[in-house]
Amino acid sequence: MWKIKGIAASAGIAIGEIMHMQEAVHDFCRQVDASQTPAEKERFYSAQQAAEKELEILQERTAATMGEQQAEVFAAHKLMVTDPSFVEVVLNHLDNQASAEAAVEDAANEIAAMFAGLDSEYMQERAADIKDIGKRLVRILQGGTAEVNYTGILAAQDLLPSDTAALDLNCVSGFITALGGKTSHSSILARAAGIPAVVGVGSALEKLKNGDTVVVDGHVGEVLVNPEEDVLSDYRLRIKNEQERAALLASVGHLPSETTDGHHIELACNIGTPGDMEKVIAAGAEGVGLFRTEFLFLDKTSVPTEEEQVESYKAVLAAMPDKKIVIRTLDAGGDKQLPFIGGLPEANPALGLRAIRLCMVYQDVFKTQLRALLRASVAGNLHIMFPMIATVDELLNAKALLKEAAEELTQEGVPFKSDVAVGIMVEVPAAAAIADILAEEVDFFSIGTNDLVQYTMAADRMNEHVAYLSDYFQPPVVRLIGNVAKAAKKAGKWVGMCGEMAGDPLATPLLVGLGLTELSMNGRAVPVVKHRIRQLDIKQTEKWADDILGLRTAADIKKRLEEIASAYEI
Amino acid sequence: MWKIKGIAASAGIAIGEIMHMQEAVHDFCRQVDASQTPAEKERFYSAQQAAEKELEILQERTAATMGEQQAEVFAAHKLMVTDPSFVEVVLNHLDNQASAEAAVEDAANEIAAMFAGLDSEYMQERAADIKDIGKRLVRILQGGTAEVNYTGILAAQDLLPSDTAALDLNCVSGFITALGGKTSHSSILARAAGIPAVVGVGSALEKLKNGDTVVVDGHVGEVLVNPEEDVLSDYRLRIKNEQERAALLASVGHLPSETTDGHHIELACNIGTPGDMEKVIAAGAEGVGLFRTEFLFLDKTSVPTEEEQVESYKAVLAAMPDKKIVIRTLDAGGDKQLPFIGGLPEANPALGLRAIRLCMVYQDVFKTQLRALLRASVAGNLHIMFPMIATVDELLNAKALLKEAAEELTQEGVPFKSDVAVGIMVEVPAAAAIADILAEEVDFFSIGTNDLVQYTMAADRMNEHVAYLSDYFQPPVVRLIGNVAKAAKKAGKWVGMCGEMAGDPLATPLLVGLGLTELSMNGRAVPVVKHRIRQLDIKQTEKWADDILGLRTAADIKKRLEEIASAYEI
Repeated sequence: MWKIKGIAASAGIAIGEIMHMQEAVHDFCRQVDASQTPAEKERFYSAQQAAEKELEILQERTAATMGEQQAEVFAAHKLMVTDPSFVEVVLNHLDNQASAEAAVEDAANEIAAMFAGLDSEYMQERAADIKDIGKRLVRILQGGTAEVNYTGILAAQDLLPSDTAALDLNCVSGFITALGGKTSHSSILARAAGIPAVVGVGSALEKLKNGDTVVVDGHVGEVLVNPEEDVLSDYRLRIKNEQERAALLASVGHLPSETTDGHHIELACNIGTPGDMEKVIAAGAEGVGLFRTEFLFLDKTSVPTEEEQVESYKAVLAAMPDKKIVIRTLDAGGDKQLPFIGGLPEANPALGLRAIRLCMVYQDVFKTQLRALLRASVAGNLHIMFPMIATVDELLNAKALLKEAAEELTQEGVPFKSDVAVGIMVEVPAAAAIADILAEEVDFFSIGTNDLVQYTMAADRMNEHVAYLSDYFQPPVVRLIGNVAKAAKKAGKWVGMCGEMAGDPLATPLLVGLGLTELSMNGRAVPVVKHRIRQLDIKQTEKWADDILGLRTAADIKKRLEEIASAYEI
Repeated sequence: MWKIKGIAASAGIAIGEIMHMQEAVHDFCRQVDASQTPAEKERFYSAQQAAEKELEILQERTAATMGEQQAEVFAAHKLMVTDPSFVEVVLNHLDNQASAEAAVEDAANEIAAMFAGLDSEYMQERAADIKDIGKRLVRILQGGTAEVNYTGILAAQDLLPSDTAALDLNCVSGFITALGGKTSHSSILARAAGIPAVVGVGSALEKLKNGDTVVVDGHVGEVLVNPEEDVLSDYRLRIKNEQERAALLASVGHLPSETTDGHHIELACNIGTPGDMEKVIAAGAEGVGLFRTEFLFLDKTSVPTEEEQVESYKAVLAAMPDKKIVIRTLDAGGDKQLPFIGGLPEANPALGLRAIRLCMVYQDVFKTQLRALLRASVAGNLHIMFPMIATVDELLNAKALLKEAAEELTQEGVPFKSDVAVGIMVEVPAAAAIADILAEEVDFFSIGTNDLVQYTMAADRMNEHVAYLSDYFQPPVVRLIGNVAKAAKKAGKWVGMCGEMAGDPLATPLLVGLGLTELSMNGRAVPVVKHRIRQLDIKQTEKWADDILGLRTAADIKKRLEEIASAYEI
């Protein structure tokens, strides 16, 4: 047995046999005789056509199995395969006697390098896309098949969007990749699918042979290769324990989310598309605390129509018609650029024209969304939430536009609910500091800890060099959360949380003690947090929270919460 | 008479005759016969040599008149003129039968465009530099002279660093530029030199003829061209009034900075180099509230030695040996990349590895600075200040390193003061929110409003699209300042401010009322703020501050402060 160290990207343990992903690039002839160039051009054009066909099939199939949003990436790839500037670079290489494989690979790498050199997450992703296309074309040129049925533990250099979309996740039980970090595409997918993953193992990947039996320990980021039988039994026992834990959590599924002294803490889910509603119901959640509407806008070449939007919003509302559904208005800009608006290059996009700020510039886009939301309101219990509010004026302006939209609909005789609740994300430190002022103008707050931490600590949460600051247990963050909860309570408004912290059971006693009455999270976290809540006494949590507000460091706070947690069953 | 509208970049009024800057680029032949290419290459090499010589002279002269830091830009240009990658692009163009002028111009523009496309202020500046070099070379190739003595109102497309460094600011009374904004190089220079400027006038610049008489109104951003005599006399009267106001302010110069009821508010200056101390003393300031030490590190190819640093710090301390001198440790990173460390590309540099965070990674660089500071401490009343502190741990780590430095010096028998005061910049919202905790570990706070506003509002202060949020009168900012002042007072520590707000007389009653006892600003602002302080009653300011803490918007706060200000003489 030997071990490979990597990054723990998705928790859990998997045992299985290694299957390497079929990488598209093999050795091939790079240079051809000038007389062959016309033939190589023909080969390129055929491969281009074949790629378009493949992508069309992938798009259709993915739309059917995983939803329209997941399928969008293939539509984008289809456009890129025939993009004139890509083709021009390829033809240049061909004219310089490159083989079709070399021309395609070099063109993709050159364009990707150009994209990757730009300081924007959006462009970084485009770099991954163009590489993906290059690999696809080279594979086709080499006569490779479009699909392999991967099973067991999948080992790959990196998982590109098109790789993962084509995977059957029921057959793959673990991932190991050479590249990538905690936030790379493959890690996010693994976590979402609940598949244990170890990423960033580097060149060690090459030492794994197809058929090797491995243990993927996604808790600590370790791969055990060909372990002895006693080690394997240990891990099998751990898997069994994890399954039992899962069963216990499943048993709380539909019990109420109440403290031992009868206080109800609402547990809701964060979702990205209407397709996620199935999981919300399965998780035993009581509604949606955050529906991100970006999927309707991103990777689109034009603004979605009002009708399209009404349909999506209604689908979510109708799935749980008597439950609270909080829909957040468009949170674009920053690292989520809208193609049809055109990205402004910003030195610090996280501190730039994003979310409500962008919506107030593109008021036509925003008002269409508000009209769609109001029209959908008849289907359920809609709550509208504005992101990134930093001042009272921004909130009043957004509310004024909502009122305009309502007046238009009234004049047009279109039905909508006139008492839709309106709230804001509290994710800018400014909003937390003036929560008492903002509370007068809203029906509810939802605290977005991811951005609140980022701005309060002045530390980009995607920047590994300042990762030590990106911690929602930092005392200033906890204090700001407390300030928001206090202001909301005083004004008689409810306050929830939809950031990552809401789904962390370690934080639950603190959040309940600070006065939060709604927590919105990933479906997976609902039973864990519910189980914790069902063991809490509210008066006790308030005392803990008071005590924690005086602690000096994030480590002190975590230590205190771990002491508290140690008394619980899970 | 007719008017040109532009951007008010530097306040004040100037009357004078237009003199256009001699722009380097004229019509020239772009393409040559292949047989001429060797001759064109020779022309390029000669121009390159001539440019090096010019830059050397400029560097020496600027170092002598304006200081080493201002001269650095020419050293950098000298390197760029012979930079192999620049030369390679030029030679490529020459090989394609370009004339030397066209080759140089195209190469400079191409490289500048590449730089300008990158999302970094640092690279944007490099783009300006390379264009500057291109213009210089074209001018030399065209036989243009190196210098023109500009007088009166200087009209130019834009003022590049080398243009402005070569100007005699005693002869130029106003600037008008076609390009640029409030934060462009020319605007900053104009404000620093107290020269009225209107920038961004666009193509209107071309309508101005040499010798036209103009009024440059830097208050409103307007240029009056060939005005009638009565208009001119009005403006002459306004200039006279401004001069009288300046005289009144000069008269308070050496009076104490005390409220009517005898409370002393310390007025200090922000400085960038030891050379600024002359202005500090002239301004009637009581010391230095912020000495930025970056000038020792930026635009350098190697780390400054301990000796170099000791010399600079001592020079500042010795200039006012009995006054408080607050020296801030290195605040690099973000938009101030250190060449010898190598810039990490960061998606959001303002939220990245900067200031104390960077120093704790490059501890050898940091410790050398701390040793230099301690060694210099014998020359005066040194206060050491750490920038960007967000957690107690960061502060304790920095203090531990300072202790290490002190222990080393003790062992080496090098003298230093053992009771140097240690404080922090409060510029991250986190620090403001835990000011009570941090106050236990420091001797003083200095609030940096520029970054505090940026992070609290989550709005890049250099991004015009979110400029409406970049306002230190935003209620959350004012509340955080109040929180810091309260915590400091409770812990018995002094609290000052060294951001832009400190020099704004409109803010003075509020800041005094919130409990700040030190304000550090540009030398120009000292008499204005002092004059205001000398009319304040401290109890009254406390009542105003209490009242202002409850206001809802920045506009409300400004309105209230304007009401308050209207009762004052200036």
